[in-house]
Amino acid sequence: MKLFTEMTAEELREEMNRAQAEYKKMQDMDLHLDMSRGKPCRDQLDLSMGMMDALNSDADMTCEDGFDCRNYGVLSGIQEAKVLLGDMMENNPSNILIYGNSSLNVMYDTISRAMTHGIMGNTPWGKLDKVKFLCPVPGYDRHFTITEHFGIEMIPVPMTPTGPDMDLVEKLVAEDEAIKGIWCVPKYSNPQGYSYSDETVRRFARLKPAANDFRIFWDNAYGIHHLYDTDQDYLIEILAECKRAGNPDMVYKFASTSKVTFPGSGIAALATSLNNLEEIKNQMMCQTIGYDKVNQLRHVRFFGDIHGMVEHMRKHADILRPKFEAVEAIFEENLGGLGIGEWTNPKGGYFITFDSLPGCAKRIVEKARKAGVTLTKAGATWPYGKDPQDTNIRIAPSYPPLEDLKMAAKLFTICVRYISAKKLLEEMGELGQA
Amino acid sequence: MKLFTEMTAEELREEMNRAQAEYKKMQDMDLHLDMSRGKPCRDQLDLSMGMMDALNSDADMTCEDGFDCRNYGVLSGIQEAKVLLGDMMENNPSNILIYGNSSLNVMYDTISRAMTHGIMGNTPWGKLDKVKFLCPVPGYDRHFTITEHFGIEMIPVPMTPTGPDMDLVEKLVAEDEAIKGIWCVPKYSNPQGYSYSDETVRRFARLKPAANDFRIFWDNAYGIHHLYDTDQDYLIEILAECKRAGNPDMVYKFASTSKVTFPGSGIAALATSLNNLEEIKNQMMCQTIGYDKVNQLRHVRFFGDIHGMVEHMRKHADILRPKFEAVEAIFEENLGGLGIGEWTNPKGGYFITFDSLPGCAKRIVEKARKAGVTLTKAGATWPYGKDPQDTNIRIAPSYPPLEDLKMAAKLFTICVRYISAKKLLEEMGELGQA
Repeated sequence: MKLFTEMTAEELREEMNRAQAEYKKMQDMDLHLDMSRGKPCRDQLDLSMGMMDALNSDADMTCEDGFDCRNYGVLSGIQEAKVLLGDMMENNPSNILIYGNSSLNVMYDTISRAMTHGIMGNTPWGKLDKVKFLCPVPGYDRHFTITEHFGIEMIPVPMTPTGPDMDLVEKLVAEDEAIKGIWCVPKYSNPQGYSYSDETVRRFARLKPAANDFRIFWDNAYGIHHLYDTDQDYLIEILAECKRAGNPDMVYKFASTSKVTFPGSGIAALATSLNNLEEIKNQMMCQTIGYDKVNQLRHVRFFGDIHGMVEHMRKHADILRPKFEAVEAIFEENLGGLGIGEWTNPKGGYFITFDSLPGCAKRIVEKARKAGVTLTKAGATWPYGKDPQDTNIRIAPSYPPLEDLKMAAKLFTICVRYISAKKLLEEMGELGQA
Repeated sequence: MKLFTEMTAEELREEMNRAQAEYKKMQDMDLHLDMSRGKPCRDQLDLSMGMMDALNSDADMTCEDGFDCRNYGVLSGIQEAKVLLGDMMENNPSNILIYGNSSLNVMYDTISRAMTHGIMGNTPWGKLDKVKFLCPVPGYDRHFTITEHFGIEMIPVPMTPTGPDMDLVEKLVAEDEAIKGIWCVPKYSNPQGYSYSDETVRRFARLKPAANDFRIFWDNAYGIHHLYDTDQDYLIEILAECKRAGNPDMVYKFASTSKVTFPGSGIAALATSLNNLEEIKNQMMCQTIGYDKVNQLRHVRFFGDIHGMVEHMRKHADILRPKFEAVEAIFEENLGGLGIGEWTNPKGGYFITFDSLPGCAKRIVEKARKAGVTLTKAGATWPYGKDPQDTNIRIAPSYPPLEDLKMAAKLFTICVRYISAKKLLEEMGELGQA
């Protein structure tokens, strides 16, 4: 293998032509493959079909506290759902609010509430001239969409394999009162699959923000979404660590069962301090009489307890692991040692991140699209969709069947080789476009 | 029967003593009865248990458009749910958005969005010095809670048996640009059970509000919740009427299946113009990937179509009708011709409204409470919980079993007789308190 960057123009032109020939062959296969979103595949969804029998027409619909789950009431969720989600999130059930079907909706509502009503007696964000959020990059596009929707200025902070650049985070939150929050996917991050180190979590808990109403938005989306049985990432629990550090109210932690049972038909939860919970419940009681308790009960009856959920996640892993490994193997086989891309090998979560040579990501995605392979839009992993170096592409291996996925990954590597060679030739002035 | 207002002090004292003796007897029964909220009873909930079998582990989870309802996607709801809810709401499916489990939540979100983002390019309400809502009174406390939560000033407008005082509504919305909305429960209103007349609906559709972003919040909570088979109220459909009147965007219409299937585990919907829908969907896509489609599919599979739903509502009516009739009979028997209270005899919905002599409602509710009968808080039917005449009490007959309900209704009439006699004596100066 020779590094592309050390090749002559002649060699690069050969690489380009070879890649283009392979591309043509795959284009003729009329592919329609989607690696764009973190969607579970059909086999994964089938794992939870037993939940459809967890409550049938003969079921006892009463929860442990004696409430009829079919009727109004129980604003914060039934106790056994708090216990189950508490075990899943590593939090005390008393710190948990059970919501509807989507943790994204919980995050949106949390920011919306801060905009209109403020946090703990502070000025509502909507009344301030400027509100800013720190956004570790690359990150999750739907987070950025929420903050952009509310006119919150987003400041990118570089991610590293141990979490966000904490020197920068500490400095920024300490000096700028307008910074009210930071988006985090602390475990098996979207899109890299990185997990925050112990030091990172400890430094988060010890932040000294200028703003009293600064909050860490800790989206624990992949808390139990391991790919391996024992080789698993483990994080210091952030609520407990914030409490120990004397910052008990500084974090909102989010999770859901969307990628445990059914996306869109799971249950979502928020874990936070009792002070925060009190404030949130006062607003929630204006918003709803309560979320879907029948679905809460259905989940609890299906899993029994956290052990049942862990066993269930093992089955997800058995489906996902070969897909991640296939993509990584194909990347290694076709791109290894060429110096035209770097990628991660996560131990959990839903994504692999790929970084191309600068200025290539958009063109790679576009070229893949023209051969029938849909990737996440280049730039999507950055605030405002603007990746300054145009390098980052999020790879989502979960949805396509394994054989399709292999084809899509192969095509992707062909596009990377083609565009990289072309780009290098352009930079040499050997091709029209520079 | 003699009117209390025509009685001598001596006669009133006798009435008071007689009522107190009856009260004591019932107090000794150690009752624990709840007529406070519009909650379906257990028998009603049992009617929908078949829905728990509508999707079992062998079910085809694909909706008509071919989407797997278990996975992400389909922001606005599955088509067959739009058709079913469209038939229920008398709207075209293309005008419908399916939400989560609560129409209250939809109303809250609708106002929250107007606060932060405004409506159709108008200034966000949160940026205005003053925002006002018209509130037909007596009305639904949870509506008032939402507007109060957002600091919106509430202006009471008297209800009549044909709807709100439209002369006043027309005048107020035309002259005050700060008036941005009005809360309506147009059919079997909460708490009177009144339905708006054709003239009222037509005048609503022809309002000429000073504010461009004025909206009618049309909470069609009891659209199909009739008590009788043929003696049913029918309303002109408001979206169509607004369109005919040249005000297509002026109304948001809300409904849910909370009192059709399970409260808290039903599906909610919004019907509005395509312009409004477009704006709302642009916000919704920041808030969620989609609501619970499995529950949408479950509802559709259970009912089949609107005829199935209508037949189902007939069973609800068979349970509710005897309860309404029992309360009305007991009121008539014990209060008829006494001139100390007026009440409604609705043909649908969930409530009966009772108006006592001025200054008696709070004391009646308190006296009932002391004998173990919980009523809706007096004042709850007015904005800020302040009923200026202290007359209105909302009676919710649905929840208690029939025999309990009869006891509760009886006790209520005893409390009305006691407090009314006492009040009249006080006004005569015949008792300490005046």
